Amino acid sequence: MTAFPDRLSEAVERKQSQLVVGLDPFPDRVPDPLPFCRKIVDAVAEHAVAVKLQSAFFEVRGADGVRVFEEVCAYARGAGLIVIGDVKRGDIATTAEAYARAFIPLADAVTVNPYLGGDSVEPFVDACKRESAGIFCLVKTSNPGSADVQDLELADGRPLWQRVSELVNDWGKDVIGANGLSAVGAVVGATHPKELVEIRRLLPRSVLLMPGVGAQGAKPADVVEAFSSGRASALVSISRAVIFADSPADEAKRLAAEIWALSG
Amino acid sequence: MTAFPDRLSEAVERKQSQLVVGLDPFPDRVPDPLPFCRKIVDAVAEHAVAVKLQSAFFEVRGADGVRVFEEVCAYARGAGLIVIGDVKRGDIATTAEAYARAFIPLADAVTVNPYLGGDSVEPFVDACKRESAGIFCLVKTSNPGSADVQDLELADGRPLWQRVSELVNDWGKDVIGANGLSAVGAVVGATHPKELVEIRRLLPRSVLLMPGVGAQGAKPADVVEAFSSGRASALVSISRAVIFADSPADEAKRLAAEIWALSG
Repeated sequence: MTAFPDRLSEAVERKQSQLVVGLDPFPDRVPDPLPFCRKIVDAVAEHAVAVKLQSAFFEVRGADGVRVFEEVCAYARGAGLIVIGDVKRGDIATTAEAYARAFIPLADAVTVNPYLGGDSVEPFVDACKRESAGIFCLVKTSNPGSADVQDLELADGRPLWQRVSELVNDWGKDVIGANGLSAVGAVVGATHPKELVEIRRLLPRSVLLMPGVGAQGAKPADVVEAFSSGRASALVSISRAVIFADSPADEAKRLAAEIWALSG
Repeated sequence: MTAFPDRLSEAVERKQSQLVVGLDPFPDRVPDPLPFCRKIVDAVAEHAVAVKLQSAFFEVRGADGVRVFEEVCAYARGAGLIVIGDVKRGDIATTAEAYARAFIPLADAVTVNPYLGGDSVEPFVDACKRESAGIFCLVKTSNPGSADVQDLELADGRPLWQRVSELVNDWGKDVIGANGLSAVGAVVGATHPKELVEIRRLLPRSVLLMPGVGAQGAKPADVVEAFSSGRASALVSISRAVIFADSPADEAKRLAAEIWALSG
């Protein structure tokens, strides 16, 4: 199969979209997640390049919710969407391997927590090689509390997230696609436009997955710098502002066009 | 309900055990995890104070595996064991709240990844208050790669895990049980006996959950220092050496007695 970054590039160009729609079926707002997610998928399939399923909002419904997660992954892939499992897993190697097998190839890509270091990420990188998957390592997350650990000043004067960026760059060096982008990407909150510039510099080959636009306060214009490695080098993930819009299709179309215009 | 650390203390004293048996049904060794886990629970219930279910080895079997996870949690609690869900979740606040609800009160306690900072841990601390649950934050994990991020030298000359220890101590300050221990504990690999001494000093009120004894190379004697905050202030989690033993009951009994003797 074609490498993940090349599949992504092809889809971005074809759809003229870097919009990722976050499927976050909050339990108090979405009593029945399967028809809800299917409807969103139908509405946005033409305008979004990918959907990102937030695993927590399925897991909170127990095993039945996990079944829905599986069904929505399959449904979205059937609709021509790239599927990102937002699972933020991270564990020791033998366990991480089980997590990689749990979510790949159900999803095309997953989010990964780097706190446990290189040997915990390696099984996911192996999945990138073996299954042409992609991963997005947490680097600088969108929440205010991200400062507590990610901004800690290291002995060399830099914040921690800069060193993690270097690690992520290293982890991704053997899974570079024909387009020059790596299958190992990074999660960077759109709520941190200043940090974004530096992360782009440290991770020239990584696709940056950026949540935080919309309900969390960032604007599409905050992410412009991310596209300096190319049209497919950044993805903007928007959830509540699309899925709870009066017309998710119209909102997805509008946001995709706005982001595409910024990325050129 | 009685606070988690007090329930734990009571069970440790009653069973004279700090042994946690790790239920890790590796897919290639355990084709059918439900009867396997039930049999281990029956065998160790008298000797172990808790079981720790590694979520990945259930999730890798899809929604059916998650159903088994739920059933094993209930079965183990029915057998008088404290149940720890080893899920290592960490996400922004609204999502972390869903994870907390997914696993509490199904399990008595869960493991949590601190990389996203205080606001990502807070919903789990709320579950400690609301549901008398416990959490164990990753501080210094047992794998070799833990050095990549956790050992990074900070501007003040200390390794990152020391600062994370302080954060964990702070996160747990409002959920102290009658026995003086906090519902917010820490995961520390038994493979790091030197770091353990310092972590115990920085986290005098936290229960330390220590994997790494057995297949990962550490010995029960490596964890002695952890008990300086009391008999119930440390738990030793052992998986493969028990669950794949010829007699899991005998091996659990032997290990529990060995650890108890060290803890006095």
